[in-house]
Amino acid sequence: MSAAFAAVDWGSSHVRLWLMDAQGEVLAERRSADGMLKAQGKFAAILEDHLSAFGAPEGLPVFACGMVGARQGWVEAPYVAVPTSLDAIFSQAVRVAHDKRPVLILPGLSQGSPADVMRGEETQLAGLVETLQPGAALACLPGTHSKWAELDGERVVGFATFLTGELFAVLREQSILRHSLIDAEPASGPSEPFRAACAEILQDGDLQGRLFGIRAGGLLSGTNANDSAARLSGLLIGAEIFAARQRFAGSNKPVLLVASGTMRALYEAALELAGLQFTHADADLAVRAGLYAAARHYRELWI
Amino acid sequence: MSAAFAAVDWGSSHVRLWLMDAQGEVLAERRSADGMLKAQGKFAAILEDHLSAFGAPEGLPVFACGMVGARQGWVEAPYVAVPTSLDAIFSQAVRVAHDKRPVLILPGLSQGSPADVMRGEETQLAGLVETLQPGAALACLPGTHSKWAELDGERVVGFATFLTGELFAVLREQSILRHSLIDAEPASGPSEPFRAACAEILQDGDLQGRLFGIRAGGLLSGTNANDSAARLSGLLIGAEIFAARQRFAGSNKPVLLVASGTMRALYEAALELAGLQFTHADADLAVRAGLYAAARHYRELWI
Repeated sequence: MSAAFAAVDWGSSHVRLWLMDAQGEVLAERRSADGMLKAQGKFAAILEDHLSAFGAPEGLPVFACGMVGARQGWVEAPYVAVPTSLDAIFSQAVRVAHDKRPVLILPGLSQGSPADVMRGEETQLAGLVETLQPGAALACLPGTHSKWAELDGERVVGFATFLTGELFAVLREQSILRHSLIDAEPASGPSEPFRAACAEILQDGDLQGRLFGIRAGGLLSGTNANDSAARLSGLLIGAEIFAARQRFAGSNKPVLLVASGTMRALYEAALELAGLQFTHADADLAVRAGLYAAARHYRELWI
Repeated sequence: MSAAFAAVDWGSSHVRLWLMDAQGEVLAERRSADGMLKAQGKFAAILEDHLSAFGAPEGLPVFACGMVGARQGWVEAPYVAVPTSLDAIFSQAVRVAHDKRPVLILPGLSQGSPADVMRGEETQLAGLVETLQPGAALACLPGTHSKWAELDGERVVGFATFLTGELFAVLREQSILRHSLIDAEPASGPSEPFRAACAEILQDGDLQGRLFGIRAGGLLSGTNANDSAARLSGLLIGAEIFAARQRFAGSNKPVLLVASGTMRALYEAALELAGLQFTHADADLAVRAGLYAAARHYRELWI
């Protein structure tokens, strides 16, 4: 058993844990649906259950990031304000009072104006900067709440959140558009309606004026649910990129897309349509690299 | 009893009926929650119940508009395509097979590109053009699905739908923003946070990049629910006006705002911030004036 520490990505709805060795290699992985919302009052027990399933020795230190550090989490890890070096999320980690082992929770980042916060993505960013070319980049982390962050070396200059994934879900399930969308199958990649919608909205960014057209297209032309959903996805992702391009217009930096699977394919198509240069990184690798960097910062805790 | 006809505004969730005389004056009014969705298979019975409560004589003709003419309504009244004269919604009204009296349902309007539809608002527009100065106007009809229509005399040149009211509802109740919004009281008018949000988004129209800031403002600055809701309202109405201004940019026409109560106050404040000239009209008067014009078109049916 060469375990040196455990790395934990503890979000709102899920928790993922990795048993790691001193070189940052994964020895074992576990996940469960015991996210922050469900884990209220049971954080220590859930953690110990997973560690015990790993066969983790007593005293093995744990480094965690994500909503576990929110006010409603296990212990609040107060936000670090940007601009900041990403080292600050290591030095300002909060230690949990837990008798079995050291548990450190990394803080999120906050921005005063425009007001914004992140929890979890800062650890991915910390992992990414280790592998980045020296210089500047604009990281794009798609998701329920997509994050864009402007990086300069290992500094975060500023960031922005877009409700892209959440808007897709509530419009698909709760709005008048559900009549045209609810039967759609999950997208497998960027279809022609996705590209067309994306190209269209990249002209002017007008999302609100195009949403009802999805319902009208269903009524007037019998557009099928898959094509309607692809159009909504193209509009939302296109509007996100349109807005991010405006927000970070001065930066002129290449985009580092942190996504996998279908999401990666959709964003790559959209970034191409927007004429933006981009490279790709893996989100899972990034969060583990960030937690490994946190662990190295606290090497004196390793067993 | 000087009743000449009954006018009915039959929407998705509500029905409103007026007993009218030959001069278009209201003799009596009724309303109920038997909208198109609930009235499936019972349209005739619901109508006759209301008319019987009015003491309406057999044979009294009925002129109806709204979702009652949708495919899922009583009888489908196929859309009239724009550009069109508003007279066409009278001549293309569909007569229901109903043995008690003549019942005519006015059609909605459709637009091929961008795809769009309306049902009910076209009758308000027909009522409005009767009272308009000759010339051109841009009508703004706020609501769950706000409509903007470009008028030229009694012609509808084109129109656009914005999901403003529906986005407010689903974001307030279903999204991450609910944590910051759910305790808000209904707005009584344009507060300072409403105006600030509206002025801000009128600069660039970027809605998606500002939504999460409502949650972040609650977390970082403890913004209260009423101010957060006012901000969301200001962002949504501002984004609607930003987009409408772009869409109808060439028209350079004064805006005719068709709204009442708080909605009127909010839109007036937003239109002022956008630097748009506007006048005001009453939505209830407009729909009755439109149905009265329909009734005059079919004067041979009056008893």
